[in-house]
Amino acid sequence: MTETGQRTPSRDVHGALVDAAERVLVRDGLAGLTVRAVAGEAGVAPMGVYNRFGSKDGLVAAVLVRGFDALAAAISGEDGEPPEERLAGCGRRYRRFALGSPQHYEAMFGTAVSPAARAAATTAELAEHAGAAFGVLVTEVSRAMDAGVLRRDDPAETAQVIWSAVHGAVTLELAGVVQVGNADATYERLLATLVAGLS
Amino acid sequence: MTETGQRTPSRDVHGALVDAAERVLVRDGLAGLTVRAVAGEAGVAPMGVYNRFGSKDGLVAAVLVRGFDALAAAISGEDGEPPEERLAGCGRRYRRFALGSPQHYEAMFGTAVSPAARAAATTAELAEHAGAAFGVLVTEVSRAMDAGVLRRDDPAETAQVIWSAVHGAVTLELAGVVQVGNADATYERLLATLVAGLS
Repeated sequence: MTETGQRTPSRDVHGALVDAAERVLVRDGLAGLTVRAVAGEAGVAPMGVYNRFGSKDGLVAAVLVRGFDALAAAISGEDGEPPEERLAGCGRRYRRFALGSPQHYEAMFGTAVSPAARAAATTAELAEHAGAAFGVLVTEVSRAMDAGVLRRDDPAETAQVIWSAVHGAVTLELAGVVQVGNADATYERLLATLVAGLS
Repeated sequence: MTETGQRTPSRDVHGALVDAAERVLVRDGLAGLTVRAVAGEAGVAPMGVYNRFGSKDGLVAAVLVRGFDALAAAISGEDGEPPEERLAGCGRRYRRFALGSPQHYEAMFGTAVSPAARAAATTAELAEHAGAAFGVLVTEVSRAMDAGVLRRDDPAETAQVIWSAVHGAVTLELAGVVQVGNADATYERLLATLVAGLS
């Protein structure tokens, strides 16, 4: 990734710049994710970042594509999980992703980014990857309906309800404003409430 | 509130400064809520704000006390609501508060404020008012249990589950990242799911 030595293939340069952008996001938060900071982190000239990502928005979009792919991989149901456990497992892994990658999570879903700013940074590629992550949840909900764990209903709308609820629990936990109880126990109660209310 | 004319009683000065701080919060967000900005908005010297609130943190705490009081008033059950509707009404008014006061809501519960920064700005008075707002929900949950709308359980832990879920729905809506469906319909489905899952 330096300007010296063997020439790095273009695709690796892209990947290395997104790696650098992720490190900057984790270290400095979304507000610190600038072209200049990423160039510095990667050891390249700012123009090298501009040429590849166009702007700070392009850089943010590239990092968020990685975030949605990681979320999709995290929540995918695991082979061999019994049907009645599979959806709760998906919910538990969702929380683990959020708590383990809070800066990514905030950049993906947080209210600190205004809807207008988020729309400006949303490329077609990003929307596709975000939709695919949601699609994993929809597929898991469909499977749970097929297995009789949830009652038959529109899987996407049911997935939206589940996502809303688990998002709320993890964001209260991330914000540190929980009023009572133990976060693990509250989350388990929430998952059980959702399955009971949707079955 | 100006330095000229009739002397304003001290309590009114306090209220007028918090009024000014709320206008700054709505206009510029939490990041813009500085002693200087509030002094400018109120037409007083910055020292007048420092003397009264100590720091930016004190100013934020005073605004958030107002926010929690407004939330508590907003979600309180209304006399005459039938028991089976009362908790859902509380949930609907919670959403209306959040959508109507998004900057307050973000400052109260958002993940853009780090837990450490939030702890630093939390006075005993603020913790008391935040606890009182949560207490309104706990009381409503208790009533719903007494009325047989929810099954008997720890009201505070049940309230925490409900709060987590409704918080998630309103924050996804505020962030503009909802994937499917109509926000009104999703929220109604969520409320129905919670009541069904907790009954």
